Amino acid sequence: MTAKVGRRFLPEGDDMTSATSGPALSTTDSDSLRARIDHFYARQMHALDDNRPAEWAATFTDDGVFAVKGQPEPTRGRAALTAAAAAVRDQLAADGVMHRHWLGMLSVDPRSDGTVLARFYALVIATPRDGAPCLHRSTCCADVLVGDGEGWLVRERQVERDDLI
Amino acid sequence: MTAKVGRRFLPEGDDMTSATSGPALSTTDSDSLRARIDHFYARQMHALDDNRPAEWAATFTDDGVFAVKGQPEPTRGRAALTAAAAAVRDQLAADGVMHRHWLGMLSVDPRSDGTVLARFYALVIATPRDGAPCLHRSTCCADVLVGDGEGWLVRERQVERDDLI
Amino acid sequence: MTAKVGRRFLPEGDDMTSATSGPALSTTDSDSLRARIDHFYARQMHALDDNRPAEWAATFTDDGVFAVKGQPEPTRGRAALTAAAAAVRDQLAADGVMHRHWLGMLSVDPRSDGTVLARFYALVIATPRDGAPCLHRSTCCADVLVGDGEGWLVRERQVERDDLI
Repeated sequence: MTAKVGRRFLPEGDDMTSATSGPALSTTDSDSLRARIDHFYARQMHALDDNRPAEWAATFTDDGVFAVKGQPEPTRGRAALTAAAAAVRDQLAADGVMHRHWLGMLSVDPRSDGTVLARFYALVIATPRDGAPCLHRSTCCADVLVGDGEGWLVRERQVERDDLI
Repeated sequence: MTAKVGRRFLPEGDDMTSATSGPALSTTDSDSLRARIDHFYARQMHALDDNRPAEWAATFTDDGVFAVKGQPEPTRGRAALTAAAAAVRDQLAADGVMHRHWLGMLSVDPRSDGTVLARFYALVIATPRDGAPCLHRSTCCADVLVGDGEGWLVRERQVERDDLI
Repeated sequence: MTAKVGRRFLPEGDDMTSATSGPALSTTDSDSLRARIDHFYARQMHALDDNRPAEWAATFTDDGVFAVKGQPEPTRGRAALTAAAAAVRDQLAADGVMHRHWLGMLSVDPRSDGTVLARFYALVIATPRDGAPCLHRSTCCADVLVGDGEGWLVRERQVERDDLI
C-alpha cells in the first residue's frame, strides 16, 4: 500500500535530480536556509490557527496553489485561499472545535532555478470545547518556495493525506 | 469561538507592536536566536519529563510566573514551581502514567527591552503503563524570556488550553 | 514509576559527565551542530516512512546498533536493520496502515571522543486506510552519532518505550 509513497511525492515536473543539481551550498548555508524556512512555517501556521485567513493566504504567491490529494481541484490564488481558510474557521467556530497545525520533519533542497523544495509532515490536532484533543489528520506535504525579500512565499503546496494512500 | 485567540494571546501589557519595535536584527541573528531558544526548550522539557523538578524550576527566573488560563492564580517563584512539578510527578507515579511535553511551531520576537517574546504550541502526551499513548492536552504558550549568560530564563509563561477557549 | 527515567537513560558506558567534558564549543557551534543533526533526522525518517529500508539502514554505521527496551536483543548491522525495516513495511502494507515517525525535543551534546550524544522524543503516528490517525507509540531515544564527511551516522540508538517504563 505504502510502497508508492516515496520519490513520486513531489510537485509535478519535479524530481530529486533537479532538487540537487543546483549550485552546491555549504552545509552551513543549507542549515541556515532550513532554519529560516522553519521559522516561516511557524508564523504561517499561527496565522491560520489564530484565524487570520488573509495573513495566512499572503504567505502564498499571488497565484499560489494549494492541492490536497483526493480533492478534484486545487485552490488557486490568494482570494480563494483566504475564502477557503475563512470557511474552515467559520465551520470550526460553529462546531466549537479548535484546530492546531503542527509541521515537523522538515527537509529543504535548494533547486537550480532558485526555488526551494521543502518537504514536511503536518498534523492537525483538534480539540473540542471542554473535551480532549485528538489527531484529526496526518499528512505529508511538499512545497515549492520562492524568495520574497528576506522571507519566503509558497508557490505550490501538495498535501498527501495518510488515510487516502 | 476561536476568533479571539489571535493577537490578544500575549502576556499582559504587551502587544505585537512592541515585539517588533526593537532594533532590527538581521535574519541570521534572529534565526540563530530561535535555534538557541529551541534547544533551551528541549532541555527544559527533558528536566520536567525526567522528574527533575528543581532543575526545571531553575529554568525560570527567581520570581518566574507560570500562568494557565482558567486557573485562579499563577504559580510564582522557583520554590512554588518546584513543588508544583513534584506534585504532578507524584500523582503520575501513583497513576502509573508517563507524560511527555512536546513543544513546536516556535516563533521568537526580540523586544526593545532586551527580552524575547517566544510563542509556541505545546502538547502533553500521556502513556499509561502497558497502554497506548494519547493526547492529554493541546495548548498555545507565550513566554517572556530574559538572557542569562549564554542561556535563557523564563520570566513569565502564559498557557492557553485549547479546550477552554 | 517514572523516577528512574532521567540520567540513567543513556547508552551503556556513558554518562552526562563524559558528555560535557569535551572541549567547550561556543553556543553558535553547538546550535549549528544541532541544526545539522535535526535535518539529518528528518531525512532519516523520510527514508523509513517512504519505505526505503536500505537507505534508512545506511544512516547507521556498518555495525550500527538499534536497541529497544524490552526486546531481548538489539538489531546489529545494516543488513539486519534493512531486513527489520522491510519486515515492518510488509506488515504495515498487509494491514493497510501508514506509519509516520515524528522526532522532537532534540538535545545534542558533543563528547570528548568526537561523537555526539543526541537525545530526543519520538512518536509513531499510525493511520489506517480511510481511518483516523492515532498515536501508536511514544518513546524517548538516545543516539551516539559519529561524523561521516559533512553528515552523520548512528552508531547506537537506544529506544525507551513510555508504556514499558
